[in-house]
Amino acid sequence: MRCMTSSDTPGTAANAPAERTAVAARDWSSAAADPQYRAAVVDLLGALAYGELAAFERLAEDAKLAPTLADKAELAKMASAEFHHFERLSNRLAEIGEEPTEAMAPFVTAYESFHKQTAPSDWLEGLVKAYVGDSIASDFYREVAARLDTDTRELVLAVLDDTGHAEFAVEKVRAAIDADPRVGGRLALWARRLMGEALSQSQRVVADRDALSTMLVGGVADGFDLAEVGRMFSRITEAHTKRMAALKLAA
Amino acid sequence: MRCMTSSDTPGTAANAPAERTAVAARDWSSAAADPQYRAAVVDLLGALAYGELAAFERLAEDAKLAPTLADKAELAKMASAEFHHFERLSNRLAEIGEEPTEAMAPFVTAYESFHKQTAPSDWLEGLVKAYVGDSIASDFYREVAARLDTDTRELVLAVLDDTGHAEFAVEKVRAAIDADPRVGGRLALWARRLMGEALSQSQRVVADRDALSTMLVGGVADGFDLAEVGRMFSRITEAHTKRMAALKLAA
Repeated sequence: MRCMTSSDTPGTAANAPAERTAVAARDWSSAAADPQYRAAVVDLLGALAYGELAAFERLAEDAKLAPTLADKAELAKMASAEFHHFERLSNRLAEIGEEPTEAMAPFVTAYESFHKQTAPSDWLEGLVKAYVGDSIASDFYREVAARLDTDTRELVLAVLDDTGHAEFAVEKVRAAIDADPRVGGRLALWARRLMGEALSQSQRVVADRDALSTMLVGGVADGFDLAEVGRMFSRITEAHTKRMAALKLAA
Repeated sequence: MRCMTSSDTPGTAANAPAERTAVAARDWSSAAADPQYRAAVVDLLGALAYGELAAFERLAEDAKLAPTLADKAELAKMASAEFHHFERLSNRLAEIGEEPTEAMAPFVTAYESFHKQTAPSDWLEGLVKAYVGDSIASDFYREVAARLDTDTRELVLAVLDDTGHAEFAVEKVRAAIDADPRVGGRLALWARRLMGEALSQSQRVVADRDALSTMLVGGVADGFDLAEVGRMFSRITEAHTKRMAALKLAA
């Protein structure tokens, strides 16, 4: 399925390690000459854009559950930051001649299923969900970013900039567990359910989106083979486990 | 209840018309020397700030009902704009040494009652509600702004800047009525209910908040007497009626 030929990248040797750095060293206009790479990036930006819009909605929804006005304002602030990330991604899609809503459309069902399966029943569940979801998404996109062309990478890393949510969630959840340790058991179960549902929806997306999964599995980007994808999922799961432990939630 | 004495405003004659321009010609630090004026402005900024936060929540909520991804993104954009207005008001309260959440607290019940009594049952009712609510609030604050000190006035007018919602709502509602004229009858009833509920909650706020109502009724600001308040409410209702007629909704 490799569609990048060495003739597209003059000066790059045809062996695998050199190819692995090829896209990551090129800018968008050069890398996008390969239609499969271009399609994969459009998918990636569409998925990320809809994810930000969904995060906006989820945080705004959680703001309604906030126990104090200050917490409400804090969540509204994060929601607004997510919206600005969405805006940048959406503008970028338009810039490269893609209709943002069309690029996002293939990912709506997966996000909506995830959110329906994991509707938080209270403020703390909402915080844990936002924290777990943001962290996993951020880990995933950072892994992928390293393999993207320089322009796309810069944008992806910029919109992953922490909106301050992690610190806020950790602080509130820790305080709640300190006040009532039984809360920890309930939230640990909840976090496991979130991780399971997130993995199941990701698999669905990967199965549905050829260009995206081809890029992930040793395809048009940089020699990201199936074993590497497996290792990536391990790293993400491991990081999740560590975060939960730091939150005093056994994952 | 007039607490501003002519000795506080050297150079101002003691007659009513001159007093009427007094606060409006002063800046905050001069006007705020009068503790009742100061308390009234803190109330006003608190009410406006909570209104923006509530508008953020309402628009984010409506975004979930949006029939298309483009509509959803448009509403998220407006919600985010309302959040930035909230942020400016909240920063201003902090700047003048007030705790924003304390300043907002007295107005939470009125807004929440209003929103509970007027939960939209669909996308179009949500649009009409946001349009009617924003327009009435904007008319009211513009009337009051003319009577405020120069610094507070500038801020109030800045956060009333149209977030593009009005045009969007009008366009969508008109199209829906053109497509099915029966929709117009239903939305006209809805708009009447919104106006009634808004008036009833405003009366509650005015009854509860001494400093604010004293400013409105010929008090610490600029000779805004009871007859003038009556005329203000007439102007606001009249503007509402005109807007509804323009929307082909008989108010």
